[in-house]
Amino acid sequence: MWKLSGKSVYRGIAAGPAAVLKKQDQQVQRRKTEDADAEIARLKDAAAATKQQLQELYEKAVTEVGEANAMIFEAHQMILEDEDFLEAMYHMIRTERVNAEYAAAAAGDNFAKMFAEMDSDYMKARAADMRDITNRLIQNLSGQGQDGFFAEQPSVIIADDLSPSETVQMDKSRILAFVTVHGSTNSHTAILARQMNIPALVGVPLDLDKIENGVTVVVDGMRGEVIFEPSQAALQEAERRMAQERERAALLQELKGKENRTRSGRTVNVYANIGGVGDVGYALENDAGGIGLFRSEFLYIGRNDFPGEEEQFQTYMHVLRMMGEKKVIIRTLDIGADKQADYLGLGREENPALGYRAIRICLKQPEIFRTQLRALLRAAVYGNLSIMYPMIISVGEMQQIAAIVRQVQEELEAEQIPYKVPEQGIMIETPAAVMISDELAELTDFFSIGTNDLTQYTLAIDRQNARLDDFYDPHHPAVLKMIRMTVESAHRHGKWAGICGELGADLELTEEFIKMGVDELSVSPAMVLELRRRIREIE
Amino acid sequence: MWKLSGKSVYRGIAAGPAAVLKKQDQQVQRRKTEDADAEIARLKDAAAATKQQLQELYEKAVTEVGEANAMIFEAHQMILEDEDFLEAMYHMIRTERVNAEYAAAAAGDNFAKMFAEMDSDYMKARAADMRDITNRLIQNLSGQGQDGFFAEQPSVIIADDLSPSETVQMDKSRILAFVTVHGSTNSHTAILARQMNIPALVGVPLDLDKIENGVTVVVDGMRGEVIFEPSQAALQEAERRMAQERERAALLQELKGKENRTRSGRTVNVYANIGGVGDVGYALENDAGGIGLFRSEFLYIGRNDFPGEEEQFQTYMHVLRMMGEKKVIIRTLDIGADKQADYLGLGREENPALGYRAIRICLKQPEIFRTQLRALLRAAVYGNLSIMYPMIISVGEMQQIAAIVRQVQEELEAEQIPYKVPEQGIMIETPAAVMISDELAELTDFFSIGTNDLTQYTLAIDRQNARLDDFYDPHHPAVLKMIRMTVESAHRHGKWAGICGELGADLELTEEFIKMGVDELSVSPAMVLELRRRIREIE
Repeated sequence: MWKLSGKSVYRGIAAGPAAVLKKQDQQVQRRKTEDADAEIARLKDAAAATKQQLQELYEKAVTEVGEANAMIFEAHQMILEDEDFLEAMYHMIRTERVNAEYAAAAAGDNFAKMFAEMDSDYMKARAADMRDITNRLIQNLSGQGQDGFFAEQPSVIIADDLSPSETVQMDKSRILAFVTVHGSTNSHTAILARQMNIPALVGVPLDLDKIENGVTVVVDGMRGEVIFEPSQAALQEAERRMAQERERAALLQELKGKENRTRSGRTVNVYANIGGVGDVGYALENDAGGIGLFRSEFLYIGRNDFPGEEEQFQTYMHVLRMMGEKKVIIRTLDIGADKQADYLGLGREENPALGYRAIRICLKQPEIFRTQLRALLRAAVYGNLSIMYPMIISVGEMQQIAAIVRQVQEELEAEQIPYKVPEQGIMIETPAAVMISDELAELTDFFSIGTNDLTQYTLAIDRQNARLDDFYDPHHPAVLKMIRMTVESAHRHGKWAGICGELGADLELTEEFIKMGVDELSVSPAMVLELRRRIREIE
Repeated sequence: MWKLSGKSVYRGIAAGPAAVLKKQDQQVQRRKTEDADAEIARLKDAAAATKQQLQELYEKAVTEVGEANAMIFEAHQMILEDEDFLEAMYHMIRTERVNAEYAAAAAGDNFAKMFAEMDSDYMKARAADMRDITNRLIQNLSGQGQDGFFAEQPSVIIADDLSPSETVQMDKSRILAFVTVHGSTNSHTAILARQMNIPALVGVPLDLDKIENGVTVVVDGMRGEVIFEPSQAALQEAERRMAQERERAALLQELKGKENRTRSGRTVNVYANIGGVGDVGYALENDAGGIGLFRSEFLYIGRNDFPGEEEQFQTYMHVLRMMGEKKVIIRTLDIGADKQADYLGLGREENPALGYRAIRICLKQPEIFRTQLRALLRAAVYGNLSIMYPMIISVGEMQQIAAIVRQVQEELEAEQIPYKVPEQGIMIETPAAVMISDELAELTDFFSIGTNDLTQYTLAIDRQNARLDDFYDPHHPAVLKMIRMTVESAHRHGKWAGICGELGADLELTEEFIKMGVDELSVSPAMVLELRRRIREIE
């Protein structure tokens, strides 16, 4: 028996045989060819086949991990249409008279290297995409095929890292858990694990060569631990805890359809935070009362240009229709800081978290904002929409927003396009907004407290900075006092106030929040029923 | 008559003939030499002469711009002792048989290039130092000398940029104002201008070749404007305003020795913020009642290793003795964010302003902190010292600090070294500290509000980021409310509260601050008498 630790991305527990996924190094031979045209034709066929495969992967991914996460496959298809990339390969075949496999490998390497050297994390990540694409193209050229990984029995998948195409191609019914050496808690593997409700550990320092296929492995997402060849006692302990988990999950299922009501009869709205259209089903499945925070960034990220009004309108309408009468709070564009889109040309900033982001971009580049507002006002006709504005710090900003909304409304009126001006609220995530919440409450329909950023600014601590872990206190009294101030200001003006940051899902604070009078808690879909249980225990 | 705008670093006004300072490109010829040893000896002589000159410049600079700003010349001397740099030159002379001038130029270029490519603003700035040093070394080798720039009559100095050595070598009695194309408001030129109380504009987009020596120039630091060849009317207007300024300055001088008392009899302490020992005289000259913020970073920056206890003790004692019975509030190390010292190994952070800085470094690396505290407690015997802790966000931090102070005290006791535990206060510069100021007030002797960082965190705006200028409001009601909360918390516990950020010098707010009950305002030495005048007008 031996153990290793890693970062847990889902708090489950599983045991089963190891299935080690090793990547084979692709061998590409350089061959001379006489007929360059024939090689180019072969390359074009392979590119078309690759695109077709990617389209299938995209469709599979939409249902499995949601549209936002599936978009990577659309991006891959776009690379295969890139003129520079195609020309580079054609040129090499023509001038060097080499085979298509070699031209693809060489051009792919060149482009990947170019991306890897760019001064942008986003572009660096594109290097991995480039390699993924090139591999697939070469496999199609050489007729090797690229089969998904199929374990013969339900297994714990152990790998260095898993690419999006690998995870999507797997037979999900045979995956008990994931354990990877690399990968972040936001990787595709992590997203998939959370969607599938199976445990996953990333960043586990293991040597794949030392692990035999079939040995028993326990993956403990609660303790962030993986046990290889567990002792009889350890295995029994794991099985006991798995049974408990199953029981807990079953109990949670029973809470579906029940109210979020404390023993003394106070009800609280429990909504879900989501980041893409694909998550809506997940929210409904967990019986969320509405969407408390729909991050609209997925529409803007991972593409080459702004999403148009029609595309946005269709997306918002689709979500509103799926949610029926339930409330859907869509937050306007909150890009900048750690979320970047290259076409916005945001550039590097010394302190991006204190920089040009969210409503600041929308007010400085109102053409972006107006497009989104037009789409939102049009979609509002089809459901129970609320709009929420992020990173507000002043009354002046709210006045500017109101003027733009009025203008958009007049335009739609003049164009005789159906629209509705929905409920509008402020995301309270700066200390400034808390301090002037009394003034802001007059100008808004509701407040939703974004505790992550609010805590970051209040404590002057970047949460991503591991060096400051000793100083970071998620339950800091200053933040709790600010939440109380915000709720009181809202209620003084007859408005409602909720929490959509991570603190909303913190069960240790639920009772305190209810005492403060918080009207709504918006949490990840997986936490909706847990939170309901906690609420029903109170008082 | 034509005008240009620039950034003003001192609010004065001056008129006089232009003296254009153009840099001559240094020509270095590559010559073959037979006697390498003789060239090396020549190089050593020149290096020794250069070091001697730098020592003289250092001493001159200490009296003119203060010790912190003079340190650049010590750093330059250190470069001339750097083994790698010297060896590079010797090696080139020996192997390539070239003359010393050429070896110096080539080695200097190499080192400058290496620094320029490093991923640190601090190291990039060292590239300019390297070039400054190499030029001086070559001039000494070629016997060209490097004369200071002497205008024949009092003139407005116009230049691309001025290096520290150029400004220090100038005959100050003949400088009316500075106008430079490059340079920041924190450049050596800017510091010198403020010290000399003469107007200076930096960042003026002019073409030096188009300006003739001797043409009349008006430099208006109030309007941030420079007028070339002014009309008769413009010149008269400038002269009228200069006369007003002289009168105003004379009136301010009369305020020396007077009290900071409002008409209704309330007195406020007006102290000075300083950044080095050289500024103490400047504070006294402007009749500051004490030092409200002595930034101790100058001891740590621009050197290769931590300052030792004895060095710190001597410096603090020196300052305390100079100030006599007047209060001196020394802030413990506030490095990190935009202030870096390479030997601390702070590394790059995504958001340095929300990062590992100030008290966080001191608590994580207590050996640094203890050295400073030992020096402070020892120095406290020699004057009226207070210690101030920056970037506090929690009660826990204050408890940790108290434990370290106790430990230091016990050590000094055991070692029978004279010491005193002085007044200790908290710099209030995070929203968290404001929100828990009631709890913090119990654990401290005073509060001093650092409005720059407090505003930055409250508004979530990096002040250095020009893109956010439209959103930045220095008089934001949230910040004013926080100042009020802090003062009230202090007074509730019988403690005093002051302001040491830029807002303290904002004359539009003085009356409001006094109404809030602020006990002390600490401002730049140049603002002490201005602020006194404003206070004496109130009520």
